[in-house]
Amino acid sequence: MYNVKIYVTLKKSVLDPQGDAVNEAANSMGYTGVSDVRIGKYMELQVEKTDASVHDMLDELCDKLLTNPVMEDYRYEIEEA
Amino acid sequence: MYNVKIYVTLKKSVLDPQGDAVNEAANSMGYTGVSDVRIGKYMELQVEKTDASVHDMLDELCDKLLTNPVMEDYRYEIEEA
Repeated sequence: MYNVKIYVTLKKSVLDPQGDAVNEAANSMGYTGVSDVRIGKYMELQVEKTDASVHDMLDELCDKLLTNPVMEDYRYEIEEA
Repeated sequence: MYNVKIYVTLKKSVLDPQGDAVNEAANSMGYTGVSDVRIGKYMELQVEKTDASVHDMLDELCDKLLTNPVMEDYRYEIEEA
């Protein structure tokens, strides 16, 4: 079994209105030192061990289901459990 | 300036229907080894250095704005830039 952590972020060139909203909210609450907020997704999942490469499988899963490759980047960490 | 990465996860005891939906989608696409999908949030932001503790400030910001402390846990990484 592998424990997998996947981090999905918007590409640098893509505007992040959700991040801007959080940024403004933080500033208006008095946290004026906060800037450049970007919001992404974080996923944890388990993958059974097979003969196939877990990296290939995860790349495919991220490209097809978990992310929008046009707008988002991803990276993942794999930990054997 | 600090670069901060914040990871927000649902508490273990809280059901995650979004994770279940992704799990079922992955399984029905043929990735049958995938299980226990949990979906959280990932945030990147920058914080200006001040005399006050950046840890205290981030704890407060997370508790008041970025997370729902009843349902979610968070952790963060701080990197000096």
